[in-house]
Amino acid sequence: MARWEPGARERLQIAALDLYAADGFEETTVAEIARSAGVTERTFYRHFADKREVLFRTNDDFIAPYLEGVAAAPADAAPLAIVSSAVVAAAAFFDDRTADYARKRQSVITANPELQERELLKMAALASAIAGALRGRGIAEPAATLAAESGVTVFRVSFELWLADPDARPLAEIEAGVFVELGVVTASP
Amino acid sequence: MARWEPGARERLQIAALDLYAADGFEETTVAEIARSAGVTERTFYRHFADKREVLFRTNDDFIAPYLEGVAAAPADAAPLAIVSSAVVAAAAFFDDRTADYARKRQSVITANPELQERELLKMAALASAIAGALRGRGIAEPAATLAAESGVTVFRVSFELWLADPDARPLAEIEAGVFVELGVVTASP
Repeated sequence: MARWEPGARERLQIAALDLYAADGFEETTVAEIARSAGVTERTFYRHFADKREVLFRTNDDFIAPYLEGVAAAPADAAPLAIVSSAVVAAAAFFDDRTADYARKRQSVITANPELQERELLKMAALASAIAGALRGRGIAEPAATLAAESGVTVFRVSFELWLADPDARPLAEIEAGVFVELGVVTASP
Repeated sequence: MARWEPGARERLQIAALDLYAADGFEETTVAEIARSAGVTERTFYRHFADKREVLFRTNDDFIAPYLEGVAAAPADAAPLAIVSSAVVAAAAFFDDRTADYARKRQSVITANPELQERELLKMAALASAIAGALRGRGIAEPAATLAAESGVTVFRVSFELWLADPDARPLAEIEAGVFVELGVVTASP
């Protein structure tokens, strides 16, 4: 049997999500996920540390497009303009093809506090990485963290709007609108 | 033996934090915490569900002052002005008397991903409760969530600045400054 099985990782992700959605996250075992994906438990553990991690891209995979966006912004751009262009560019990952998976994944996460905590930790890692990249561009604190956290807030709010409406506008377009709204909400009177 | 032991809750909190800081969160047992506080394990479990919860006020206790602040804001106040007055008013809980405990607690939490996740969940619950209170005042989405999340971001950034400097200005004063900074960062060009 070949150690490398083409597509095993993706099959495991889809099988796991289907089982979590149908039977509940707590109730599903790694053995069931592996069987449903047609691989061994050993193969499961070659790809994922545990049952929870199947639902999450690695932080590096998830965060890299945002950091590339920050690096690509013009030298004289303001902190929130840098973050906004990075967040909107990274939205390309989420398209019609991924919407169904994302929607089902979200409902599994919402039903389980342990998964919610993991998702929040991922968002916190994203904000912290963006803030670090902004500091690397010479932006001082607390402006770097405020801009980074605001960008992640816009992403989360927009992502929820996008998931809630199957015929929604593209995520990038929703985000652009929510960034404008953020400017209105936080404008000094 | 009386079922109600005066001060047991507070003694347990202080004993637990001291043990977590000295020996590590993972390494400390409930039996050790109870012994150090001079109570039984049973008493520990009358007050806290588990080892982790000793470090957290209940969501209700933590969130109530913020909701009172939202309720007290003038009827015609803008969303972020409502949130800002609520956040600054709730800062009264954190004074010189609580700073040492808060500082030690923060270093225990920073050292443990499981505790970090719990802290993030608490912050998410706060943002969600404030957004709900804003919607109750007739403020629409996404403005309600953007204002609430921005307020929690300002709280977190300010809280870290306050903890980092033992001779810092009062938390409320730091927060007022960070709200101004947020307005600058998020201003449209």
